[in-house]
Amino acid sequence: MENSEKRTELGELGEFGLIDQIQQSVELRNESSVLGIGDDAALIDAGEYYKVVSTDLLSEGVHFDLSYFPLKHLGYKAVAVNVSDIAAMNAVPEQIVISLALSNRFSVEGINEFYAGVYMACEDYKVDLVGGDTSSSPGGLFISVTAIGKVAKDKVVKRSGAKGKNIICATGDLGGAYVGLQVLEREKQVFLADPNMQPQLEKYEYMVGRQLKPTARMDIIHELDELGIVPTSMIDISDGLASELLHLQKHSGLGIKIYEDKLPIDNQTYETAVEFGLDPITCVLNGGEDYELLFTISQSDFEKLEKHRDIHFIGFMDETDKDAGLVTKSKTWVPLKAQGWNHFKK
Amino acid sequence: MENSEKRTELGELGEFGLIDQIQQSVELRNESSVLGIGDDAALIDAGEYYKVVSTDLLSEGVHFDLSYFPLKHLGYKAVAVNVSDIAAMNAVPEQIVISLALSNRFSVEGINEFYAGVYMACEDYKVDLVGGDTSSSPGGLFISVTAIGKVAKDKVVKRSGAKGKNIICATGDLGGAYVGLQVLEREKQVFLADPNMQPQLEKYEYMVGRQLKPTARMDIIHELDELGIVPTSMIDISDGLASELLHLQKHSGLGIKIYEDKLPIDNQTYETAVEFGLDPITCVLNGGEDYELLFTISQSDFEKLEKHRDIHFIGFMDETDKDAGLVTKSKTWVPLKAQGWNHFKK
Repeated sequence: MENSEKRTELGELGEFGLIDQIQQSVELRNESSVLGIGDDAALIDAGEYYKVVSTDLLSEGVHFDLSYFPLKHLGYKAVAVNVSDIAAMNAVPEQIVISLALSNRFSVEGINEFYAGVYMACEDYKVDLVGGDTSSSPGGLFISVTAIGKVAKDKVVKRSGAKGKNIICATGDLGGAYVGLQVLEREKQVFLADPNMQPQLEKYEYMVGRQLKPTARMDIIHELDELGIVPTSMIDISDGLASELLHLQKHSGLGIKIYEDKLPIDNQTYETAVEFGLDPITCVLNGGEDYELLFTISQSDFEKLEKHRDIHFIGFMDETDKDAGLVTKSKTWVPLKAQGWNHFKK
Repeated sequence: MENSEKRTELGELGEFGLIDQIQQSVELRNESSVLGIGDDAALIDAGEYYKVVSTDLLSEGVHFDLSYFPLKHLGYKAVAVNVSDIAAMNAVPEQIVISLALSNRFSVEGINEFYAGVYMACEDYKVDLVGGDTSSSPGGLFISVTAIGKVAKDKVVKRSGAKGKNIICATGDLGGAYVGLQVLEREKQVFLADPNMQPQLEKYEYMVGRQLKPTARMDIIHELDELGIVPTSMIDISDGLASELLHLQKHSGLGIKIYEDKLPIDNQTYETAVEFGLDPITCVLNGGEDYELLFTISQSDFEKLEKHRDIHFIGFMDETDKDAGLVTKSKTWVPLKAQGWNHFKK
């Protein structure tokens, strides 16, 4: 089957290594292929606009655990995470296609629950479900979503484009989805140990909601548009803040300086992290799945956003020092490290 | 997790039933969503053109068996089957995105083999790989491909649109891919019984090739364009001729009459079907996976195609009788039945 001469484990390469390798092998032949692999979404020429295309695959046991993930929420999330990628290009989503591989353990009623969540997200984000495919699966549920959006050519924002002294902005608060996942995992273990135990989730509602029903920040995209602001670069925070900042560093060729005391974290998230023996700042930096937006703006745009309730100014792009790091409250410099997902590592 | 009040098995509904149900629940909000679920691909407005979007999911153990499917061929096929859907809209493919869920049993070398096949197909069909996602899989390989193409607005061809007396055309020959699959399955059993046995495939090379390396008929799309012919309706033959003809019947509201003696079958396919105890005509009607094109033309276009070496005129659209059936060599009328895939049925 496979070439048996040499065997390199996927874990040695990692997901980003695999993507890099594919990216290097690919050539773009068609004029309409404006931007390929390597950003939140691809750009396809469509006359007046770019069509923006993004795709995500969610695998049971890797991205979600059906023992605590309601199918309706899963349907919603599958759409939202793709909308988030479209948002990260400063684009507006318009269409999605969804493919499902399903095992026989799913009933028609279960699938209807899933699609109820899909339709709800379609309504919230004004997206149309225009196609898909269904197949049986020998085991596990796999969800593949491709979203298509559009953006005026002079409004598109990529991962590259940040300039020196640009201000780094993050929306919402971070770390919540990761802490919510820890809560759900703990409650699952409690339930497995004693099925009569009811899960205690009230106290953790916010973080659990962040995990089970993330929101794509289209509201921010529309607000920026109304304010006449085009970020200089943007990415959505799916793998964790540190990982995304390193992408911005790589694509801009500039250094990154962020400040611990500027990082947005919700109070409950902070307290729950501590309760779980986790460092709250690590949750913010490496948690992932918050689906907030990370973007850079010119200093001249700062005034327009200064009072925004939900945009936080966490640092700046540094043209003098190419490193990426965090300045702690005690003024120590901590280099940023991606601890994003590497599904292939054991 | 799932609503426990009622449980309807997926097999009761079937894949087409599930698609129908989803289609009925969906509403299209965006002006740019010109055509949604229910054809080979969706149509999205893009100014001068339509963008055409199609997606397919291939699951290990359902769509392919890695014990005889080389990864390179699989990569090629994953692209080709999507290109075939784009072709069926009379469109030209330009971009694809590919997502893979992979278990740890795959090595980097194996994945490179897969992508070598993808790149080969990209070259053959002049398509650009512009994005994707990779994830680990707890078991099995899942491949999701979305293809995007374009077509001038006055050239788009749907499943609907056939008129009475239109001639039904099929390209290439049919049944080969299905017979090839039977050959591969038999050789697998032989190998499992005695691993020292070498597979005997030379004699069956043509059919095995049809299964392992199908071709999307972009050549036909370009030829039709050069001849100035726009089919009145079109669909690609993925689930089997009978199943696709029933789609054309449903979308046109007309009857269908095809003739046994006009059905295109390769000699080797015929002989191998007989050797395997299969009815060759059943293989042609219900085999599936040939990825040929089925389309209808106005009688006025017949002359231009009459001498075409690879387009066969298998019947006509009947406005007087709404049934769909086959006229056998002995002049018997056999109603067409879809025996396409129902993955969910045991």
